[in-house]
Amino acid sequence: MRLSKTLGTLLLLACSGCVFAQQEPLTVRKGKVQLDFQLDEKGAPRYAVSYDGKTIVQPSSMGFVLNNAENFYDDFTLLKQATNSVHENWTPVWGEVKSIQNDYTTLELQLQQAHGNKRLLHIVFKVYEDGVGFRYEFPEQPNLDYFTVQQEKTGFQLTGNHKAFWIPGDYDTNEYPYTTSLLSEIDNAQLVEKSTDIAVRVAPDKHAVQTPLMLKTSDGLYINIHEAALLNYPAMQLHVNNATYDLTANLVPSAVGTAAFLHAPAVTPWRTIIVSNKATDILSSKLILNLNEPSKLSNTSWIKPMKFVGVWWELQTGKSSWSYAASAKAKDAQGKLIPSGQHGGNNENVKRYIDFAAQHGIEGVLIEGWNTGWEDWFGNWKEDVFDFVTPYPDFDVKALNAYAKSKGVQLVMHNETSGSATNYERQLDTAYRFMRENGYNAVKTGYVGKIIPRGEHHDGQWMVNHYTRVAEKAAEYQVMVDAHEQVRPTGLHRTYPNWMTGEASRGNEYNAFSIGNAPEHETILPFTRLMGGPMDYTPGIFKLSHYNAADTAKRVRTTLVKQMALYVTMYSPIQMVSDLPENYEAHLDAFQFIKDVPVDWDDTKVLAAEPGDYVSIVRKGKGTENWYLGAITDEQARDLKTGLDFLPPGVKYVATLYADVLNQPDPAKYSIKKYIVDRTTAITLKLANSGGAAISFVPATAAEAKQLPKYK
Amino acid sequence: MRLSKTLGTLLLLACSGCVFAQQEPLTVRKGKVQLDFQLDEKGAPRYAVSYDGKTIVQPSSMGFVLNNAENFYDDFTLLKQATNSVHENWTPVWGEVKSIQNDYTTLELQLQQAHGNKRLLHIVFKVYEDGVGFRYEFPEQPNLDYFTVQQEKTGFQLTGNHKAFWIPGDYDTNEYPYTTSLLSEIDNAQLVEKSTDIAVRVAPDKHAVQTPLMLKTSDGLYINIHEAALLNYPAMQLHVNNATYDLTANLVPSAVGTAAFLHAPAVTPWRTIIVSNKATDILSSKLILNLNEPSKLSNTSWIKPMKFVGVWWELQTGKSSWSYAASAKAKDAQGKLIPSGQHGGNNENVKRYIDFAAQHGIEGVLIEGWNTGWEDWFGNWKEDVFDFVTPYPDFDVKALNAYAKSKGVQLVMHNETSGSATNYERQLDTAYRFMRENGYNAVKTGYVGKIIPRGEHHDGQWMVNHYTRVAEKAAEYQVMVDAHEQVRPTGLHRTYPNWMTGEASRGNEYNAFSIGNAPEHETILPFTRLMGGPMDYTPGIFKLSHYNAADTAKRVRTTLVKQMALYVTMYSPIQMVSDLPENYEAHLDAFQFIKDVPVDWDDTKVLAAEPGDYVSIVRKGKGTENWYLGAITDEQARDLKTGLDFLPPGVKYVATLYADVLNQPDPAKYSIKKYIVDRTTAITLKLANSGGAAISFVPATAAEAKQLPKYK
Repeated sequence: MRLSKTLGTLLLLACSGCVFAQQEPLTVRKGKVQLDFQLDEKGAPRYAVSYDGKTIVQPSSMGFVLNNAENFYDDFTLLKQATNSVHENWTPVWGEVKSIQNDYTTLELQLQQAHGNKRLLHIVFKVYEDGVGFRYEFPEQPNLDYFTVQQEKTGFQLTGNHKAFWIPGDYDTNEYPYTTSLLSEIDNAQLVEKSTDIAVRVAPDKHAVQTPLMLKTSDGLYINIHEAALLNYPAMQLHVNNATYDLTANLVPSAVGTAAFLHAPAVTPWRTIIVSNKATDILSSKLILNLNEPSKLSNTSWIKPMKFVGVWWELQTGKSSWSYAASAKAKDAQGKLIPSGQHGGNNENVKRYIDFAAQHGIEGVLIEGWNTGWEDWFGNWKEDVFDFVTPYPDFDVKALNAYAKSKGVQLVMHNETSGSATNYERQLDTAYRFMRENGYNAVKTGYVGKIIPRGEHHDGQWMVNHYTRVAEKAAEYQVMVDAHEQVRPTGLHRTYPNWMTGEASRGNEYNAFSIGNAPEHETILPFTRLMGGPMDYTPGIFKLSHYNAADTAKRVRTTLVKQMALYVTMYSPIQMVSDLPENYEAHLDAFQFIKDVPVDWDDTKVLAAEPGDYVSIVRKGKGTENWYLGAITDEQARDLKTGLDFLPPGVKYVATLYADVLNQPDPAKYSIKKYIVDRTTAITLKLANSGGAAISFVPATAAEAKQLPKYK
Repeated sequence: MRLSKTLGTLLLLACSGCVFAQQEPLTVRKGKVQLDFQLDEKGAPRYAVSYDGKTIVQPSSMGFVLNNAENFYDDFTLLKQATNSVHENWTPVWGEVKSIQNDYTTLELQLQQAHGNKRLLHIVFKVYEDGVGFRYEFPEQPNLDYFTVQQEKTGFQLTGNHKAFWIPGDYDTNEYPYTTSLLSEIDNAQLVEKSTDIAVRVAPDKHAVQTPLMLKTSDGLYINIHEAALLNYPAMQLHVNNATYDLTANLVPSAVGTAAFLHAPAVTPWRTIIVSNKATDILSSKLILNLNEPSKLSNTSWIKPMKFVGVWWELQTGKSSWSYAASAKAKDAQGKLIPSGQHGGNNENVKRYIDFAAQHGIEGVLIEGWNTGWEDWFGNWKEDVFDFVTPYPDFDVKALNAYAKSKGVQLVMHNETSGSATNYERQLDTAYRFMRENGYNAVKTGYVGKIIPRGEHHDGQWMVNHYTRVAEKAAEYQVMVDAHEQVRPTGLHRTYPNWMTGEASRGNEYNAFSIGNAPEHETILPFTRLMGGPMDYTPGIFKLSHYNAADTAKRVRTTLVKQMALYVTMYSPIQMVSDLPENYEAHLDAFQFIKDVPVDWDDTKVLAAEPGDYVSIVRKGKGTENWYLGAITDEQARDLKTGLDFLPPGVKYVATLYADVLNQPDPAKYSIKKYIVDRTTAITLKLANSGGAAISFVPATAAEAKQLPKYK
């Protein structure tokens, strides 16, 4: 660590009005990243961040309002400061790379308020080469035991009117489309109002945005603001001051308004600022993951990344239904539900998916709508919705599990809670014991609806704790979790490696029932939602139109190849193969890529990326020499020149190139070509508008090396 | 049923201003009780009640405000009316009498709103000889499916400025002392503010009172207003109009303000009005119990009324502590709690109670403070407080259970939740399985603290459902429930006969740590709190002063004999024998009555009663020929002349008369005399101020009939 006081002074000069006064600033540098900390003349902690000499975050506010309007943001004196440099490597249970480097320098500050209760506050910064993380720590102390956080005053005073890629700061959903606008233009009111396809929307601050927030400055710097290790605390949103470009923490409130209930010693999540002059660095950053604690699970051998098909897209598109009867009132004289004939989760249909999975080496089959209750599950703030163990009459738990087993296929459980977390918590043990007893090793959870406990929000502290409890309970029963409608992730898959993936964003499903996703959507997600962790985006829709009989105008606004490329660009260790079997069977040559593409990786290279425009990533399959490339573009067709220097020297590879067919109207057209390539080859990916490219690279046999053409 | 339209007209004449207009009134009479119903000129339902020709409730409002301020209180037309007379008998699993007569006449009204959604509302009255019950039913219908109740408009328009025995309408507690005042004088603000000994107090309406509300008119009628079968609905309090004497329903709100979340078909609890010209009839009424549904439990053989001693009073009085260590921070270097030496729930002490129980034929022993967490359990709205299965190091679950078993004694579980119902619900199965596995057949639950889910109240719908879930879960594991800090009972012990007793009132415990209970307190409780169901008042304190070493001025403001009499006047099938073994050992002759007195009865006669003044009750022990009399008085000494015509003809009884010693300063003095009596004997009970009398009547042997003196 280098403590540079000079640069702190420079910052001071650069920042008129917001003075660093009480002490000289403390500075930590790591590579191009510099962090400055100072108490101002009122004893208020202030921090600033710069990159390569450019100010990224001007001196910004820190601290809290506690309990009944108690000041915990100024009147501080610095008791102690300490720095420490850490260099370590760790091995994730699964991930984008085999091994993760964790190099940072800490600046730990022990502060005490001079008057009143003389309370102690610690602030810990971790400075990385690609950004800064900091958190607050409330040490054990005489005058702070149980307490509440009314407001967190953390600010991010930005330096200009940056371009922002944002969704509204909603307490209950992350399923909005992204808006790209200047900070000065952020106003979510209209978008929130018109997004009637989102079940529950509560966004009282029209200037609030969700994190991860992606920013680009006019001089070409990329800044990402989020949080890491969100445990026992509400999610942080950001209130945007359209005039000053100061972003301030906005914590999701509890049912009684208070944001957080804490007990010292306690810590907040890490507030994260990732910065680079290269967009690709943002996507490669491991800062958020590194700020999370190591795995709490001692035995992780049962955790197996996988792909799955499922009775799902046919439900989304209206081909079949979750429910067994047409309505809760469709009952016969004996009070039994009258089958509508539309139920998707029936034995025959499930077997069809099992057969398909077995035939194509897809590990899992998800069935939604297998358990009773779907006739009346949504929209009424109903508490006792599902019981998670009672199947519909046409779903034979034991027989289907036996059938799946005989075919080497794993069934994936579905637990929709309808937002009634209290009901789910009452039955957690029962539900997970049922999974264990019936051979399910993964569960897709869902929280579609207003939360019960009533007044709580999806992203408040109580629900954050609930999701953690679910992950812990699942681990206890050796079940992997794919969590839908949860708070967006913050890297907790390091700590709970069975908390594999999740939604917390606008997934492919919106193409089924809504206005769909814009061509740029998938080029923004890696810079926003995926910064926190894997996403179950449910890619792989091959039938791009006429999939919804009731609305034949609906179409997926991508090419078919872009859907394939998403398996690489949209990282998830549990990845759905989302379309219907028959739609894959119509394109088995293209489907080969989806069959081949791994879900766990030894290495990842972000080849090219620009938020809102394009993303190109190549990854090396776990324990293999094979590489898989995915590239996608927004509404603009474009060529992406790609070198292959990630390939090992001297090895010839067969590159199977799945490409868009340009200049023709059908986005489902594709070409498949095989070439011999090596690390010196330069490939030009020709992406159609909202198109993509997918390539598998497999070491060539001698015969292949002879027979196949070289790429030119 | 007799439909008398004439009396309706009379009522109309008698009631200027509040007209019955749209249709002629419908009238049902049962004995002296008359119920009138009519739609007024706006189509608003109105009911009125009279007794022996005197109006008790003038035409009063009915109906609801639903959802977003939707009118569901007028615009009604009468679609259909029906009456039915029912005469039945049923046998309670346990109770005050062997068999209960249930004779009533129903008036069922099917109403429909004329405009808008044309919604249907049913109102069902049940008219008894001692009062009226009515409830609202929301039938299945096209325009009312899921809905919320914002406000219930049920009114009780009383006819004068009656004397009322009331506690504040608090959302979270019933533990106030009673105030006796005129309706015009009701204002709870001062009492709520000064009652700092009650953990959680939320009483936003200073004119609201709790039910059961006991009233006495200036012409000597007794009126009791309460509710029956409170399920899936918030508790009803009453807002008192000090000028008009109109009492209106005030439902305890949820965390989001709305009072109730319902789904048609649905019903409200029964609103009950019990009326008589004799106070004793109020105490004998079975109206509330009759309005509850029959037992839901098919097997009730495991339900056993009992008495229990326990590690409890010594905790309340500060002799020992619930906690093992002095504070949560009292830990050694290894992080283990350092025992304070004050822990009451330790093996040796528990054995002492087991030995005492075994020696004196007391069935059970309760131990509070046996499980970890008591160092930091209260006052911080903490969610994860107790785990209900982990004992302190000095409490050996298996060994103590074995020891108790060897002595023929039953241990009673204690589950304090600290108000954190979510935490309890997560662990219900674990907690009750633990009881089952360790031989506990009864649990005392507790809810001391602000409720979690935060924003919910002890008496709101969510908690009402929680208590029901607990009773159902307990039944599943064959565990009896003694519920503390719950919503006050509404006769649900008929439906859930394992939901034996509870607190929901100001018990004897307030004599330990607070200003205590006034001499009249126990003479009011039977007319108020006990109207809904049994109370675990924890009687039997023999050491009436100097029980609290830290505060030697504290004393119980009753005589010793009054404490004995409470076992009869304060009905409960699970009854605590509350004082310390050594205090009973100092008075073994008086203790004999407590040992003898049953907790389950074949018959009960209320001999004399006046709320706030005195209560005298005699009961016949289940399956025996023995009778037990308890009489108590308020601060006034008084003589109560008592005939014994409840005794069977021609049988001589030994009456063992435990009596106060008058005109001397020590309330712990008593006399015990045995007499031969029969049904022709007239006894004069001489009660000291705040005194009592207790008598056991056992058929005399021939020898006794000769040797013992006759009562004169």
